[in-house]
Amino acid sequence: MQNVSAKNLLNFCVQVLKSVQVCAKDAEITASALVGADLRGVDSHGCILLPLYVSRIQKREINHMAKPRLIKLHGSVALIDGDNGLGHPTATRAMKVALKNASLFGSAWVGVRGSHHFGMAAHYAMQALEQDMIGIVLTISNINTMAPWKGRDILVGNNPIAFAIPAGNEFPIVFDTAFSVAARRKIHDAKSEGKNIPEGWALDSEGNPTTDPQKALDGLLIPIGGYKGFGFAFVVSMLAGALTGAAFGASVSNQNIGHLIGAIDIKPFQDISVFKSQVDLAIREVHESRSFGGKLLVPGERGFTCAEERKRNGIPLSNKTVIALNALSQEFGIQQIGPA
Amino acid sequence: MQNVSAKNLLNFCVQVLKSVQVCAKDAEITASALVGADLRGVDSHGCILLPLYVSRIQKREINHMAKPRLIKLHGSVALIDGDNGLGHPTATRAMKVALKNASLFGSAWVGVRGSHHFGMAAHYAMQALEQDMIGIVLTISNINTMAPWKGRDILVGNNPIAFAIPAGNEFPIVFDTAFSVAARRKIHDAKSEGKNIPEGWALDSEGNPTTDPQKALDGLLIPIGGYKGFGFAFVVSMLAGALTGAAFGASVSNQNIGHLIGAIDIKPFQDISVFKSQVDLAIREVHESRSFGGKLLVPGERGFTCAEERKRNGIPLSNKTVIALNALSQEFGIQQIGPA
Repeated sequence: MQNVSAKNLLNFCVQVLKSVQVCAKDAEITASALVGADLRGVDSHGCILLPLYVSRIQKREINHMAKPRLIKLHGSVALIDGDNGLGHPTATRAMKVALKNASLFGSAWVGVRGSHHFGMAAHYAMQALEQDMIGIVLTISNINTMAPWKGRDILVGNNPIAFAIPAGNEFPIVFDTAFSVAARRKIHDAKSEGKNIPEGWALDSEGNPTTDPQKALDGLLIPIGGYKGFGFAFVVSMLAGALTGAAFGASVSNQNIGHLIGAIDIKPFQDISVFKSQVDLAIREVHESRSFGGKLLVPGERGFTCAEERKRNGIPLSNKTVIALNALSQEFGIQQIGPA
Repeated sequence: MQNVSAKNLLNFCVQVLKSVQVCAKDAEITASALVGADLRGVDSHGCILLPLYVSRIQKREINHMAKPRLIKLHGSVALIDGDNGLGHPTATRAMKVALKNASLFGSAWVGVRGSHHFGMAAHYAMQALEQDMIGIVLTISNINTMAPWKGRDILVGNNPIAFAIPAGNEFPIVFDTAFSVAARRKIHDAKSEGKNIPEGWALDSEGNPTTDPQKALDGLLIPIGGYKGFGFAFVVSMLAGALTGAAFGASVSNQNIGHLIGAIDIKPFQDISVFKSQVDLAIREVHESRSFGGKLLVPGERGFTCAEERKRNGIPLSNKTVIALNALSQEFGIQQIGPA
């Protein structure tokens, strides 16, 4: 374990991305998204992914020179082609368009196709908070993990959905969820630690419940609420995939990823300070209610608390991540990340 | 069990509602929503609720003379005050406004406050299908059933969300879900049948898993995916409640119910026939994939198949429902519903 400061990690990620000819602006946007996830404790979507993105750029699976284009614009809706570039700058620009359109028309949706894995969906939803708007982000995952309910064939991804809702004195509400009970990564982790997984996470390839991580990886992830979770993932695949012209269903790979990015302006509905005080009230109701053990949290709170702590004390990187990042520093002749 | 035709049931519901001075138009809209749910097999949201609505009107909890007002309109967004009337006509009008605004601006959201229980959320989302648009409906439930994750105090309702997405040759996708593993009604049913409920539905008032329906009713419903289901219900309470000025959190009762009703026009994104063929493709992928037993379905398919069958053969009403409806026919001097 090594603790690094957010600033050092950001700078390191920028240098690595520039080394594979990503332009300065896109490198900064992408690095911010990665470090943003690390700060919030969503390590799986943070700088641990940098080596993957670099390798995809080197293999020309990601277009490092991408120029995303606004291909349709009609009132509150727009469609962007990501030109096969990094998902982070494309999604960041898409939310910028959504926020502009929402400021004009009260609400907006921006479809994105030709994008890539963009890390943590909440990162883009949270851009709306700076303008006192509500952000909504739906995305196609770059790997399918679930079958139709009671089915054998893997046809949908975890297809996350994220919401960000401004609050007043409390932390904003930031809800970012996928539709399997557990992430596939957690099953990989259990396997490499030689542990079993809890029942309820996965089925083996015969459709039986399993606690064996390898059988789970050869089998299926279980959606939350059974048919409900599958239904959600399927609906997201239609909205972020079919509607935008991106891949969906059996054709999903790490290419032509789609997103649907929305913003709702609060002002046309409510005085913004009234709205925020109402959100604060709802949050305090949760905090002040009885617990069966432990502090009760609202969505996003753990991430904000973690980010405050990690901004002060640095981001703890696992040895595995440090080794992977050091390999990049060696490959590109960049100074290793120092301690926090 | 008695089989009645949809036409007879609709006519009966209209007459009953007119008997409590609901205007002809609102009576028809409400009756259509109820019979629409019965046709799709969502009996819990069909005419079984008529006696409840009548009693609320008689107790002046629902304003049978309500004149919903458009109180804000700004580009793609609008806010409607339901004037404390029946939820069905108010939500129907709200979706009409959303569809009109989406045809002008590409997408729309309509907030509703001062509404009531409106039955099946999918009914309103499906209005969008007639105009080749995507419908989205979020609502506050009129009873809270769940606590914050790991909490004791019931602070959120099941707060359903529904999506309707047009298809071409296949049935449209209609997804309508609440965020508890099982509906509270199913626990009532188990209790009256003297049966236990499956583990995973509910906790007792001490926070322990229970299969005893009475202990479950005194306790808490379990959200799907644990904190994920709570997070969703909480987010919906902010969007359909706090944003619209309706009740949310501990203050939820059957008064001042809020909805958030959205529409997305497909044309600005995609040629409509291309989009529909893509949706068909996704549906066929599910149908043609391998099953562990039984036909694999996409969201909404069961409802459409049920509606086709019930349009032909009539709607089966339970004895309990028939008795309740006969009591209304007696109270208001209306002819009893005949067989199909």
